[in-house]
Amino acid sequence: MMVVSAKSVVCLCFLFSFCNVRGAHIPLKMNRTILNLLKHYNISKEEKYNGQLVFSKESIPEKLLEKRVFMRGILETYETLINKMLKELPTPLPLTTGSKGGVGEGGAGEDVRTELNYILTMILKLKTNHYHEQDNLLSSLKKLIGIKMDNVTVQSKALGELPWLYEEASYLNNEIQSRRRRRQARRVKNHQTG
Amino acid sequence: MMVVSAKSVVCLCFLFSFCNVRGAHIPLKMNRTILNLLKHYNISKEEKYNGQLVFSKESIPEKLLEKRVFMRGILETYETLINKMLKELPTPLPLTTGSKGGVGEGGAGEDVRTELNYILTMILKLKTNHYHEQDNLLSSLKKLIGIKMDNVTVQSKALGELPWLYEEASYLNNEIQSRRRRRQARRVKNHQTG
Repeated sequence: MMVVSAKSVVCLCFLFSFCNVRGAHIPLKMNRTILNLLKHYNISKEEKYNGQLVFSKESIPEKLLEKRVFMRGILETYETLINKMLKELPTPLPLTTGSKGGVGEGGAGEDVRTELNYILTMILKLKTNHYHEQDNLLSSLKKLIGIKMDNVTVQSKALGELPWLYEEASYLNNEIQSRRRRRQARRVKNHQTG
Repeated sequence: MMVVSAKSVVCLCFLFSFCNVRGAHIPLKMNRTILNLLKHYNISKEEKYNGQLVFSKESIPEKLLEKRVFMRGILETYETLINKMLKELPTPLPLTTGSKGGVGEGGAGEDVRTELNYILTMILKLKTNHYHEQDNLLSSLKKLIGIKMDNVTVQSKALGELPWLYEEASYLNNEIQSRRRRRQARRVKNHQTG
């Protein structure tokens, strides 16, 4: 029964890796590697199907630029996660309880290392080749998120910096509105002359 | 001497609130309120002028769209910060040491609350009226940063979710590249017919 279901999963993945509705696909080797790794990072069915995702689809923004910044964030999160999993490998027992067939059991450690390294390479390739433009914005946003606020010094300084930032935000809004007006005027002009 | 310097600060702010080189300005009442609040959230001159800003100018991206996403992040950060400062108000002594004339001393607590609420309203007004398009990115990124990774359940689930996320990230990249190609083709066409 297990063999049949494993085979059907592989078949489905194989199909999925070639027949993709939107023209983007996961390489077959990557799919296979993930399936292999899931045998090691095994969790109970109750946990697997409790409906809680690590990355919820609702979190993905709709607008292109924001989506791109977010997807870069996802790739970075995977990078950190897999590096963490690699570091945990030499440990003879998994860190959490309740997992079956965890890392370090048997002689599969080195296979898992090779597989994790392959997945990491694939993620880094996508990130470096196609998501390098989002680098600075994401790190700036991360700095914002990391601001320690329970501190009178930060609170006072932030209040002191508010005037120019508020001005900057208001100015930017005016700038965008006048750009829109210019674009609309251009469109009307083109329509009339066209 | 103090009266003269306070007056000159108010005058400067008054001038600043009307004569702004770029057409965006801070309302006079907002400037006054910030100055009042700074009397309560007072820090030593050494801390004030140590050259360390909470929001560094270098973090602000150059591209208009990215700048807009970042400025929304700044407004959200101020929203969180001021809500935190409001929650701290009933505490009789400031949380950190080394501050003079902190919140809760004397009978100024309610004034400070009114002033903080006014600043919060101004920030929310700008955010809601002009930055509503950038909704959710920062909170989605916060969720990414908050993912607890030292957990086999999370590691296994994240591995299982990787195929569709990797596909999504690859698809998004293809989509952007074909948009660029279409835009370039349009430009060439306009250039030839124009």
